[in-house]
Amino acid sequence: MNSYIAKSTRVRSTPFTNRIEEYGVQSYTVYNHMLLPASFKGLEEDYDHLKKNVQLWDVSVERQVQIKGPDAAFLTQLMTCRDLSQAKDHICYYAPIVDDQGKILNDPLIMKVSSDTWWISIADTDVLLYAKGLAIGQKLNVEISEPNVNPLAVQGPKSFELMKRVFGDEILNLKFFHFKRFLFQDHNFLIARSGWSKQGGFEIYVDNDEKGLELYDALYEKGKDLDVRPGCPNLIERIEGGLLSYGNDMNMNDTPFECGLDPFVSFNENINYLGKSTLQEQKENGVTRSLVGLKLQIDKISLSKTLSIFQNEQLIGDLRSACFSPKFQCCLGIAMIDTAYQNHSAPLNLMIDGQEIIAEMTSIPFTK
Amino acid sequence: MNSYIAKSTRVRSTPFTNRIEEYGVQSYTVYNHMLLPASFKGLEEDYDHLKKNVQLWDVSVERQVQIKGPDAAFLTQLMTCRDLSQAKDHICYYAPIVDDQGKILNDPLIMKVSSDTWWISIADTDVLLYAKGLAIGQKLNVEISEPNVNPLAVQGPKSFELMKRVFGDEILNLKFFHFKRFLFQDHNFLIARSGWSKQGGFEIYVDNDEKGLELYDALYEKGKDLDVRPGCPNLIERIEGGLLSYGNDMNMNDTPFECGLDPFVSFNENINYLGKSTLQEQKENGVTRSLVGLKLQIDKISLSKTLSIFQNEQLIGDLRSACFSPKFQCCLGIAMIDTAYQNHSAPLNLMIDGQEIIAEMTSIPFTK
Repeated sequence: MNSYIAKSTRVRSTPFTNRIEEYGVQSYTVYNHMLLPASFKGLEEDYDHLKKNVQLWDVSVERQVQIKGPDAAFLTQLMTCRDLSQAKDHICYYAPIVDDQGKILNDPLIMKVSSDTWWISIADTDVLLYAKGLAIGQKLNVEISEPNVNPLAVQGPKSFELMKRVFGDEILNLKFFHFKRFLFQDHNFLIARSGWSKQGGFEIYVDNDEKGLELYDALYEKGKDLDVRPGCPNLIERIEGGLLSYGNDMNMNDTPFECGLDPFVSFNENINYLGKSTLQEQKENGVTRSLVGLKLQIDKISLSKTLSIFQNEQLIGDLRSACFSPKFQCCLGIAMIDTAYQNHSAPLNLMIDGQEIIAEMTSIPFTK
Repeated sequence: MNSYIAKSTRVRSTPFTNRIEEYGVQSYTVYNHMLLPASFKGLEEDYDHLKKNVQLWDVSVERQVQIKGPDAAFLTQLMTCRDLSQAKDHICYYAPIVDDQGKILNDPLIMKVSSDTWWISIADTDVLLYAKGLAIGQKLNVEISEPNVNPLAVQGPKSFELMKRVFGDEILNLKFFHFKRFLFQDHNFLIARSGWSKQGGFEIYVDNDEKGLELYDALYEKGKDLDVRPGCPNLIERIEGGLLSYGNDMNMNDTPFECGLDPFVSFNENINYLGKSTLQEQKENGVTRSLVGLKLQIDKISLSKTLSIFQNEQLIGDLRSACFSPKFQCCLGIAMIDTAYQNHSAPLNLMIDGQEIIAEMTSIPFTK
């Protein structure tokens, strides 16, 4: 069932909202109390276009929690299980934020933007309030704020050509997950080679609304022959690519190990973070459930809540995200499943709209 | 411009979503990562109906942050400037959550639901993360969780008759902002005489999905001759009634004094909360800006972001909420205005959709 989204000041607009509404946005979601476009011409058409061309994404919702001051490095490390002790000021770190039980509260990119200032580029929870609570509770010497920074992503295979036209050849030397400042007109923009798709691209951290709009227009103008369009993170593309979504595939009842985030959990004895001993125990004992991929024997699917998954009438987990995949020509899902049942060959069952559906387990990312 | 809302598991459905979609929901907003209906037949028709009849509101988005344990009272008090030292276990307390600078982080109702357990019934920010941060930072002995509690509000002048039919005469003895447990079939529901309208009513804290649906259906069935309908917090009704909305009218840059919440700020020397000394200073020095009402010389208005307000070409504040009021036959607004300009008689100006609009200041709640 289709319903409209109600506008208000609480659900914040972005500096680019006028632009994308001019170009035509079909649906929105809300993320960090802010509008995030979810489709323009339809999920599948947006997907096809993204895989072949270049899109401008208004991802202002990727808010920055800025931690600044003498204790900034300490507090930032305290919140994440990733080892940031050797963090460089030109690299983005995917770094799960965890609580004292090792449960995931968010899965941001973290950047050390200057010697005493860190940006936590957050998924959809108020990390700022967690940081404030910890800083106040431990009497840390930091300033915590949400600066007026509104990321604009340029995504798709032709993003490299488009960015070269606007920022010059040098942008092509930027390595994956590196960031650097680049000049547009008279303004320096922090730009990372990153983005929430597997099609390649950049994220521009726009810290000046007016300059950002000029940049938006320049990207649009110079990309006309590349068929540049407004776009947004695409459900199909991100599931096919195995990109996990906080709030969908993982939530604050899950640990990094349960979500396959092992590479981002460090037990370096020189770092101190919350939940470290609990995670150490889980690493030794192993997990009792974990995220897996599913292939579903159904033609189409649109999920608005998790669905229980059964094997031989036993509840063994839940489906958290799903879509029809043009590439795999079947529906794909991401599910949390008890490990005890992951090696059984018996099929899985779930009820979708009153119909019993068969599914089989596979790995993430999906392979043919 | 009308856009659809995109569904996903991240934007959570509620136990009542199926019901309200059957009855027909026109638009949603998102609140605490969850769907909140915003209109059914249109703002004005919903408003007319609410003022004359009775509505069932799915306000599951009013999540409970549960603080339980030996330090629960200490932590709950630490977060709010309202004096909870004498809190009774049958009264709801409207209690601003503040940070160490006295800035408002949320404006919940707080209930002491048992001797060592508190429910913070939150507006739209992750208070759970703030509480976790503080509890971890100060090594407090508490458990912090979000229980599966989904409030259902029964609002409107005929809510008393309807609730009497379902829960018996005793429900009519419940005083405003008091709560008590009432039996429906074999289940005890915590019910408060409260709700986010000025039309009277109740909020039922549904802690069992199945029983909640049976209750929903019973309320609907027994209210047919009262013209019971699904409904939701109504923009027009709440502005006319002067009910402030966190995220719209106030945010984390504002203090309780700036928002007229003086009655909920205590300087009782026996209580300890964050930001107390800063608020004490502000009380002594007075505020430099505060919320006021506006009457706008325009026929209709739909706000999706704050608008700057000028007086004699001087920027003096911003408009945060607005609607056309059938009762006052003009557009009403809620605005934060510099106190230095509040006694000037010169008209205010603001630009709405490229048109210059005149406004005059008035008090909240609005009077004719």
